[in-house]
Amino acid sequence: MTNTTITADGTSTGNAAATEALDRPGRIAVYAAPAPKAPLERATVPRRALGAHDILIDVRYAGICHSDIHQVDEDWGPGIFPMVPGHEIAGVVAAVGSAVSRWSVGDRVGVGCFVDSCRECDNCLTGLQQYCTGENGVVLTYNDRGRDGSPTYGGYAKQLVVDENYALRIPEALPLDVAAPLLCAGITVYSPLSHWGAGPGRKVAVVGLGGLGHLGVRLARAKGAEVTVLSQSLRKREDGLRLGAHDYRATSDPATFTELAGRFDLVLNTVSADLDLSAYLGLLRTNGTLVQLGAPAKPVSLGAHSLLLGRRSLSGSMIGGLAETQEMLDFCAEHGIGAEIELIPAERINEAYRRVLASDVHYRFVIDTATI
Amino acid sequence: MTNTTITADGTSTGNAAATEALDRPGRIAVYAAPAPKAPLERATVPRRALGAHDILIDVRYAGICHSDIHQVDEDWGPGIFPMVPGHEIAGVVAAVGSAVSRWSVGDRVGVGCFVDSCRECDNCLTGLQQYCTGENGVVLTYNDRGRDGSPTYGGYAKQLVVDENYALRIPEALPLDVAAPLLCAGITVYSPLSHWGAGPGRKVAVVGLGGLGHLGVRLARAKGAEVTVLSQSLRKREDGLRLGAHDYRATSDPATFTELAGRFDLVLNTVSADLDLSAYLGLLRTNGTLVQLGAPAKPVSLGAHSLLLGRRSLSGSMIGGLAETQEMLDFCAEHGIGAEIELIPAERINEAYRRVLASDVHYRFVIDTATI
Repeated sequence: MTNTTITADGTSTGNAAATEALDRPGRIAVYAAPAPKAPLERATVPRRALGAHDILIDVRYAGICHSDIHQVDEDWGPGIFPMVPGHEIAGVVAAVGSAVSRWSVGDRVGVGCFVDSCRECDNCLTGLQQYCTGENGVVLTYNDRGRDGSPTYGGYAKQLVVDENYALRIPEALPLDVAAPLLCAGITVYSPLSHWGAGPGRKVAVVGLGGLGHLGVRLARAKGAEVTVLSQSLRKREDGLRLGAHDYRATSDPATFTELAGRFDLVLNTVSADLDLSAYLGLLRTNGTLVQLGAPAKPVSLGAHSLLLGRRSLSGSMIGGLAETQEMLDFCAEHGIGAEIELIPAERINEAYRRVLASDVHYRFVIDTATI
Repeated sequence: MTNTTITADGTSTGNAAATEALDRPGRIAVYAAPAPKAPLERATVPRRALGAHDILIDVRYAGICHSDIHQVDEDWGPGIFPMVPGHEIAGVVAAVGSAVSRWSVGDRVGVGCFVDSCRECDNCLTGLQQYCTGENGVVLTYNDRGRDGSPTYGGYAKQLVVDENYALRIPEALPLDVAAPLLCAGITVYSPLSHWGAGPGRKVAVVGLGGLGHLGVRLARAKGAEVTVLSQSLRKREDGLRLGAHDYRATSDPATFTELAGRFDLVLNTVSADLDLSAYLGLLRTNGTLVQLGAPAKPVSLGAHSLLLGRRSLSGSMIGGLAETQEMLDFCAEHGIGAEIELIPAERINEAYRRVLASDVHYRFVIDTATI
């Protein structure tokens, strides 16, 4: 750790010196990509002075999401560098601003994909902050600019300062390491399962058994739905059944699409690869919905007849709002649901990126940020 | 009229001779396409013997739907020839089978796109016959085979025999000629307006001001929604406003897509041409739905991000069930809504087809079947 001016390390911030230092901008130890497509390395980035409504979080764990790699690689457009990825963040409150009422030092907290929004638009006012229609939209946790114009830096970090309203409470029943991936992967599947009514008597298919998919299976099962995994092969079948799936089918077998035709109320597509969406739409019963959770780089294509026959829908869903994310964390605590993770030290981040790109992960890499 | 063995002509079936003749198969005078892509001409086709649950309808008017042309031209696959198109049928009951309880001679009736279904599947049992999942699915009014295997012939005909349960009541307040197009065009727009909740406080856009679109405007307005027409040009603007639209925009003007971004709860796409669906999805507010009412020949393509940003949906909808079609007819009667039509004699059907293909129709051709 170099150049860090914060004396508080998250477990010893009770003293006056730490509080004094937090009143001024400082620097935070991180793992960052210095330039597009560059390997991540140890660095420091600015930390804002702790505002009246800010909390300082001692980050303990940060999940690695495929979208971290997309952004470092500028797959979605120009990035802001140095870039500190990480929007699956679990930690402990280390200090609170003068006006903070919701949090106390020692509270277990999570931060997901966004750290601010306009707070005034219809979506913000109805708990759909992720779809904020304010002038600058939602402020992403990293690779974005806050409402003051300064860059945001994510969770591959020792510490993080965020507005108290954009942190979530992680229940005691959830270990912080397996909770971290819930903040993006978890809410990304939980929200559509709730919105489209997965529950008893409903049949849900989850396409792809990766970071999102494995949580989709657990959550859909816990919600009472009948769950089927649709995966390229049967390689991970035992895992899928152990995670709660009632059935597991290979999409490389054409029989899957005839045998399961018209079966599902809801299909969650966690795969960003180019799929034959018409074939997947054919798996839906009348009024069923296929939900895209990721955006393939190329446009998707489908036969409109596959929508017309059965009043089917192709929909999209993107993470979830603050209240729903809290609801998801509470639901996971109640049902004992966390991610299945591979815990890694920070120096293995670049290796983990390569393995994510090769779909070689069971089922989420989580960085032990004590190693930064 | 040649080769017709039916002595009853719809106005004089009260006598014993007519009833006797109806007990046996006969022939009906029609306009038919003898072969794929061939001009339609006068002909006769078989009529089944009037079954216990059948009614004989004296067809008075039949609308010309674009899909009639697609089927004659085999755009959607091989057809059954001779083909008698027509699934927008309005007429009067001329005779009833021995067990018919719902209808009396003289009743005003309509027949839409289908004349039978399995009556046992979940969809049939819940009033969604159009999505029948029985072994052979719904039986289309023409260019299909009935459950006994014999070809079905449509409404470009002097008469029609149908099961009593697949006819709808046309209220007295609706003239039969303007009612005919409601049986396909009307229900095609009414059903999605109802399903997706068009009403007070909701903003609806109708893409295309043709046969479907002009009824979409009238129905959406009558349901209390704020209605905008999105048309290629402003050429039909005055018509659109007269029909009830609050606003009328040209899609050839790029400003339309920026000015109306995020505005609509529901967009009904009545256009089968290849549109930039991502651009139209951008017009939806959070949770909004773009509904395809026609199926372009080529696959449709869109950027998945346009679904993810705002939990938007691309959906399809196909006509409506029996109960909903009746509800639509009653709604139209209550609100004085019929189609705007050009009434033509049968010998102008082929000319009308050419004009439909050139989008030169205001807004629906209806055949006066007395001229067959």
